Amino acid sequence: MNMKNKEVKIFLAGKFTSTHQPLKVINPYDQTVVASTFLASESELEAAINAAQAVQEELKQLPAYDRYDILMYISDQIQRQHEMFSHTLMLESGKPIKYAQAEIDRSIQTFRVAAEESRRHPREYLSLDWTPAGHKKEGLVRYFPVGLVAGISPFNFPLNLAVHKIAPAIAAGCPIILKPSSKTPLSTLALAEIIAQTNLPPGVVSVLPMDRKTGNKLVTDPRFAMLSFTGSPEVGWKMKAEAGKKKVVLELGGNAGVIIAETADVDVAVVKCAGAAFAYSGQVCIHAQRLFVHQSIFDEFSKHFVKLTNKLRSGDPAHADTDISSMIDEDNAIRVENWVNEAIHGGAEVLAGGSREGSFYPPTVLTRTHNEMKVCSREIFGPVVTLEPYAEFDEAIAFINNTRFGLQAGVFTNKADEINQAFNRIQTGGVIINDVPTFRVDHMPYGGIKDSGFGREGLKYAIHDMLEPRILVKDF
Amino acid sequence: MNMKNKEVKIFLAGKFTSTHQPLKVINPYDQTVVASTFLASESELEAAINAAQAVQEELKQLPAYDRYDILMYISDQIQRQHEMFSHTLMLESGKPIKYAQAEIDRSIQTFRVAAEESRRHPREYLSLDWTPAGHKKEGLVRYFPVGLVAGISPFNFPLNLAVHKIAPAIAAGCPIILKPSSKTPLSTLALAEIIAQTNLPPGVVSVLPMDRKTGNKLVTDPRFAMLSFTGSPEVGWKMKAEAGKKKVVLELGGNAGVIIAETADVDVAVVKCAGAAFAYSGQVCIHAQRLFVHQSIFDEFSKHFVKLTNKLRSGDPAHADTDISSMIDEDNAIRVENWVNEAIHGGAEVLAGGSREGSFYPPTVLTRTHNEMKVCSREIFGPVVTLEPYAEFDEAIAFINNTRFGLQAGVFTNKADEINQAFNRIQTGGVIINDVPTFRVDHMPYGGIKDSGFGREGLKYAIHDMLEPRILVKDF
Amino acid sequence: MNMKNKEVKIFLAGKFTSTHQPLKVINPYDQTVVASTFLASESELEAAINAAQAVQEELKQLPAYDRYDILMYISDQIQRQHEMFSHTLMLESGKPIKYAQAEIDRSIQTFRVAAEESRRHPREYLSLDWTPAGHKKEGLVRYFPVGLVAGISPFNFPLNLAVHKIAPAIAAGCPIILKPSSKTPLSTLALAEIIAQTNLPPGVVSVLPMDRKTGNKLVTDPRFAMLSFTGSPEVGWKMKAEAGKKKVVLELGGNAGVIIAETADVDVAVVKCAGAAFAYSGQVCIHAQRLFVHQSIFDEFSKHFVKLTNKLRSGDPAHADTDISSMIDEDNAIRVENWVNEAIHGGAEVLAGGSREGSFYPPTVLTRTHNEMKVCSREIFGPVVTLEPYAEFDEAIAFINNTRFGLQAGVFTNKADEINQAFNRIQTGGVIINDVPTFRVDHMPYGGIKDSGFGREGLKYAIHDMLEPRILVKDF
Amino acid sequence: MNMKNKEVKIFLAGKFTSTHQPLKVINPYDQTVVASTFLASESELEAAINAAQAVQEELKQLPAYDRYDILMYISDQIQRQHEMFSHTLMLESGKPIKYAQAEIDRSIQTFRVAAEESRRHPREYLSLDWTPAGHKKEGLVRYFPVGLVAGISPFNFPLNLAVHKIAPAIAAGCPIILKPSSKTPLSTLALAEIIAQTNLPPGVVSVLPMDRKTGNKLVTDPRFAMLSFTGSPEVGWKMKAEAGKKKVVLELGGNAGVIIAETADVDVAVVKCAGAAFAYSGQVCIHAQRLFVHQSIFDEFSKHFVKLTNKLRSGDPAHADTDISSMIDEDNAIRVENWVNEAIHGGAEVLAGGSREGSFYPPTVLTRTHNEMKVCSREIFGPVVTLEPYAEFDEAIAFINNTRFGLQAGVFTNKADEINQAFNRIQTGGVIINDVPTFRVDHMPYGGIKDSGFGREGLKYAIHDMLEPRILVKDF
Repeated sequence: MNMKNKEVKIFLAGKFTSTHQPLKVINPYDQTVVASTFLASESELEAAINAAQAVQEELKQLPAYDRYDILMYISDQIQRQHEMFSHTLMLESGKPIKYAQAEIDRSIQTFRVAAEESRRHPREYLSLDWTPAGHKKEGLVRYFPVGLVAGISPFNFPLNLAVHKIAPAIAAGCPIILKPSSKTPLSTLALAEIIAQTNLPPGVVSVLPMDRKTGNKLVTDPRFAMLSFTGSPEVGWKMKAEAGKKKVVLELGGNAGVIIAETADVDVAVVKCAGAAFAYSGQVCIHAQRLFVHQSIFDEFSKHFVKLTNKLRSGDPAHADTDISSMIDEDNAIRVENWVNEAIHGGAEVLAGGSREGSFYPPTVLTRTHNEMKVCSREIFGPVVTLEPYAEFDEAIAFINNTRFGLQAGVFTNKADEINQAFNRIQTGGVIINDVPTFRVDHMPYGGIKDSGFGREGLKYAIHDMLEPRILVKDF
Repeated sequence: MNMKNKEVKIFLAGKFTSTHQPLKVINPYDQTVVASTFLASESELEAAINAAQAVQEELKQLPAYDRYDILMYISDQIQRQHEMFSHTLMLESGKPIKYAQAEIDRSIQTFRVAAEESRRHPREYLSLDWTPAGHKKEGLVRYFPVGLVAGISPFNFPLNLAVHKIAPAIAAGCPIILKPSSKTPLSTLALAEIIAQTNLPPGVVSVLPMDRKTGNKLVTDPRFAMLSFTGSPEVGWKMKAEAGKKKVVLELGGNAGVIIAETADVDVAVVKCAGAAFAYSGQVCIHAQRLFVHQSIFDEFSKHFVKLTNKLRSGDPAHADTDISSMIDEDNAIRVENWVNEAIHGGAEVLAGGSREGSFYPPTVLTRTHNEMKVCSREIFGPVVTLEPYAEFDEAIAFINNTRFGLQAGVFTNKADEINQAFNRIQTGGVIINDVPTFRVDHMPYGGIKDSGFGREGLKYAIHDMLEPRILVKDF
Repeated sequence: MNMKNKEVKIFLAGKFTSTHQPLKVINPYDQTVVASTFLASESELEAAINAAQAVQEELKQLPAYDRYDILMYISDQIQRQHEMFSHTLMLESGKPIKYAQAEIDRSIQTFRVAAEESRRHPREYLSLDWTPAGHKKEGLVRYFPVGLVAGISPFNFPLNLAVHKIAPAIAAGCPIILKPSSKTPLSTLALAEIIAQTNLPPGVVSVLPMDRKTGNKLVTDPRFAMLSFTGSPEVGWKMKAEAGKKKVVLELGGNAGVIIAETADVDVAVVKCAGAAFAYSGQVCIHAQRLFVHQSIFDEFSKHFVKLTNKLRSGDPAHADTDISSMIDEDNAIRVENWVNEAIHGGAEVLAGGSREGSFYPPTVLTRTHNEMKVCSREIFGPVVTLEPYAEFDEAIAFINNTRFGLQAGVFTNKADEINQAFNRIQTGGVIINDVPTFRVDHMPYGGIKDSGFGREGLKYAIHDMLEPRILVKDF
Repeated sequence: MNMKNKEVKIFLAGKFTSTHQPLKVINPYDQTVVASTFLASESELEAAINAAQAVQEELKQLPAYDRYDILMYISDQIQRQHEMFSHTLMLESGKPIKYAQAEIDRSIQTFRVAAEESRRHPREYLSLDWTPAGHKKEGLVRYFPVGLVAGISPFNFPLNLAVHKIAPAIAAGCPIILKPSSKTPLSTLALAEIIAQTNLPPGVVSVLPMDRKTGNKLVTDPRFAMLSFTGSPEVGWKMKAEAGKKKVVLELGGNAGVIIAETADVDVAVVKCAGAAFAYSGQVCIHAQRLFVHQSIFDEFSKHFVKLTNKLRSGDPAHADTDISSMIDEDNAIRVENWVNEAIHGGAEVLAGGSREGSFYPPTVLTRTHNEMKVCSREIFGPVVTLEPYAEFDEAIAFINNTRFGLQAGVFTNKADEINQAFNRIQTGGVIINDVPTFRVDHMPYGGIKDSGFGREGLKYAIHDMLEPRILVKDF
């Protein structure tokens, strides 16, 4: 990546450009300036929209073999620059390097699956002669790109969540203007350099950091046919109301729960839950926030879990063995501190934890919490987890469901009837057996119900959402 | 149907009830009172919502064989009462009896296909081990009912467009509150009597005529998980903005076009286009409004088309040979008259037509129109069609696309390359070869793009929209 | 059914006809003559083949709505004549009336699902531009009827196994000549009377009892495009070798096993296993022949199972409460007797049973058997079951797999890991959790691996096998 | 490729080995020895079978990501050694280098698509509660590898037709023993060197040239679960009869026809038909053998076609501009000569052609042929094409169908009704519009009906054939 003098230009319709609004990207761990880049103003956004509309028809005409080659090229190039990407991502986000590397792996896979799915757009071939009205007629359904897509991605997976908008857009044949988080635009701009090397017509992809006001045009401008947003519930649902005639997909957050039933393998569950609770300081949409453990194994689980929590290594995200580092900024760390204090004052007991230091918040385990506490009912987006016992499986499901959110849930059990109950009754977009709610592979349908989202990502599903059907009725 | 003293009760959660707001249903042809029924007030609506929520879980548990039997029973009963249904529908809507009968046939089929599809909910079974992260894991996706559906249906297909909301809701396992048009609630209330005989838990279906203010709660109340609206574009898009977190499907109108190319079978095209232009006085979402005829056959087509138009029999909708009768009300007939006059003043030539008599408007053919005239650019929803020549197929496609609507289009041609161009480039939800845009069979995906709609109906598609996916990730 | 003077004509291409070879159908219970019918000779078969070929094209042209109506009509008519059908079937086969009635229910459903699937033939619509060689090309795949089908069905489900050939053939658009078992042709000939009332072109279906020599032409004659056989493994595999160029589907038998694991619900398992072991005297392809019970519950299970076995009511199949009656003939009863005696001499212990009386063989439970005994290793097709303990689940799977057959297996367990192991490793066409191998619903894919079969039935799968793909490659 | 001293070892279960039966591979163009390799004897075959069976379980356990990586690695390595592969293939087969290169491109793509499809094995997730018998039950269908596959591939596409057996076998998880043509084993043995570098367990793939007697064990040995044969009809159908219980897929030949209708683009059709008639001297299963041209354009087409035929450059296959070179051996050239002479004596007229020189046969165009001549009715597998006029499209279809073969057919037309007729009525596995029957891309379903084959190749279809379903019925 071109970080000469640490100035990184933004990507406007095939060109790298600077603007009048500089944007400093700060390393959350040591507060140094990682690089300087730019915010796009309305005029750059307007240029990007115009360029996107100008190439829309050309993009639609691109044969499948070209789309495939372009997406595979991008995947291969990220692979070749794996170290640069993971390092950049670590610096801009403060994400420990081992997690940063895993995110790069996922982006490689995301583009690869997009390549494969770009040759497998949905298509239907229907008999229509179910009544005499359809005599000797049949139907073909092709799916056409909906048009210009607006993508908005958050800081917590700076590259892969942007990729989950860019890759399906290319695969679907839709131009896209992506607004990365202003805190973490660098890895996505590095991706833009690869995109610029491909045969994609300039204008198909723009990566433009923007302030919120400018960015709001992505929501309201009728030239966008679709808005794909990943971020907070409050912002997301407001966008849906303002989006006019466009399609909207919202990938929001939650306060995911886990059930550890009596037949669970406790050793496995402890390790997986610790990862799900504290990886990247819990700044993950499907972070495990609420653990419900069967009373017969509660003490055992609790003891091991606290022990493991206390062993987590905190420090510089650049170190290979760092488990937890600073949060994205001090405001967020303070917010977490306040919520934990509220819980403590309300009667919660701290099984593990410590005190905030600047933007670092230590991994924290609470028990004796109740649902009115913010640490339970809201999305904490921090390294805090609650640990509570349950008696009956029904009760555990009720605990999991007692929230306005519904993204994913984990259930550790070896009982077939409990698995069935979990699948039938847990109100989330995903139920993960013998693993944590944080589980996601990039081709699976992923998304929330209730307040946690609207629509699904995962390549096939995201591509499908960027297409609209047209039926041809013909004689046969 | 129970029309004792011509008083028809409304259907509130399994019970037939009267309210304090009587509603007279008027025969558009002779202005007699067909029957008296009732408008639901907010309190009835509230009762229906509560009842629906109360049975939601029970409905979800209904095995597929029960859902199937219920839907087949309804289909069979409509068949048995075919004459009553078509007569009622004819009386309330003024639709000529032959078209009313065809609509009943379609409702029978709609329930039947819903029964079949109720056993074929989408389901997915996925391998997840595409990366080591998914090692020994697999995914099952079941689709669960989204929850309470609000259905709003228009006067022009009083029964079948209501059925396109009720049948998929039952098939999906969603309770539904259906607001029929206040002009034509009777055939849907007759359907409610059949529904009341089934094993469906009371509360699953309510049929409540409402005034617009009360009805607006269907849009804004967060207890509805989905809104399915068929009606005018203006109303529909406004609803989308007010719908909050719910899913929205809009089936709106258009100004559908037809291309009659030089290889067309003119005799067939003339007959089909006349039907598409004037059936039920053009009060059809996919009414053929704009005909574009290749210049080499324009005179021939025009002569035959006008001749056939002049032969259409107008009169009492109860007569088997009536082709065209009164419009739904005089206001609409006056509106059509004004638009035609605007066109004439702007230079259009009248090839067939006459003068309005009350709510009857004669079948009218215009030529020398241009796109600024309302008869071209807006949805006329009346028995008026424009007839214009074209030189090149490209030009004809441009004419078809030169509108903010995009529901369906017809193309009469025997050239394979023209069919390909039509499918690739006509911007509508459906392109109908060698038939009119008015073509619809009830299991095909149906719906518009651009301003003509949002989402698709057709049983499989409508049911899918009333479901939401949940993935179970498990070991294998 | 027309049983005047108890003479039933056979069904040759739309006509009911007699031949020179009379065939007496004997009630296995009391050896009375149920009715007299006929064997077709080569000349009748030849006439049927010619008639079938003559209508092949007409049948192919039948629109989906006609196929659907015909299949639904047949389903409805069987429903209306339910009592006649179940009575006839009981008389010809000696099947206790409650099982006969259940079989009629299944035939009703089989035709109904065939009707639905007749509108859902497989079709594909493919993008072909994955390489430049396919630039601007796409593919449509339609599935066409393969041609004339030969169906051979056995005595044990006289109607429903014939229906599993006839219904998919009609749904696929293939003419079919069905050879029912000469022991039990009457219920299928009763079905032919319904078929004769439909609009199906005469010649599409013929039902011809034949001796083995004549019947062998169904295997060898190249005018048949497909052979669908249900019967014994020995006969079936020999047919495959003699079938020439035709497609072959074989539905053969097995010696199905059941595992009752320690988490099983024993009460449920006992009842289900008794039904699976002794219904219709075990003359069922997926009869439960070998039970493997976890050693911790072996005694409990064994005690209850023997008790229930001893309670089974034997007697006249016409009585509503008869559980078990005569076998199909004395030869088979003697064969079973011999095999049991062989086992006893080899060291097996009889937990329940008694002595043969003519063609009646009592329900028999053996233990201490080993795999060299015929009661274990061969298909007993009689009311005999072996009961053995196991220690480890792995071992139980090995027991199940230790056979040359592989039709279905049952596993009673509530452990998710055992279910996974069973699915991954049991070598059968179906693994039935918490139920018996005898489980079958008519739309599921059903068939064996190893020596138990070749191909799958179940409507969608059977229809698919009667179709062959043709791809149209075209420009787009 | 390791061609030291021009000795190439064969590939036996992961090891390269020599045997006691040397095999010389001769360049058909100049009769020089390309290399020396070996024929496997029964003992090597036995070793390969044993090795394959030993790794079957390990192969089945391979996660999808490993299968994918292996297949992608092979694809990439062929790409890197493109020149070596195309050169080897040209030398062993005499195929002009430009066609050899195209074949290598296809093999690269074939492995790539196999990689993608290896993650997309068919799977089904079924509701079973269509009747009370299936209450609260559901079904999962996984597809398991059938077991050891025997592959037999011909000389005419030495690499890609072997790859169409090896790639799907790896993707399906089946071990495979591949017998390449003894004339052209070298490119497939070069492929084996790449396979040997992967993580595939040794034994999964063996490439063993064999004489016919040894090779026949691939057909008759019951340890093979499936036989996939590409070659001549006579040999193929005989194999089906001898194959015992195994599955059989036959990809045989034909005498493909082309219709050039009056709306055809003659310039395009001439060029495509010349390629289809004469590429690789017509030694192609879907070689265009019979051209039927509408009488109104027959003279024009004929003149251009003959002119182009006479311009084809013959000579050394190593030259980039060689269009046609020697046939595979002189026997075949003599056979073609004889058939052409028979036609001439029967009244056929030679529009282009000349005299045989050794194994070179010149591109030949005949007219005034009739269906009793071998050049019409049999598969000529040589550079000979017949050219005949037709009057009505129906007649042209009848000509196409008047053969015992049915692989693919081409139709040049712009009339939609002719395309429909062609699709509905041409009796072949594929109908190619505006292109030649020779069209094939590697992911499309490909195969013949009538005497031309049994089953389909194309990755998804070939993989599917190497899998067998197992249903898990479970509670939900």
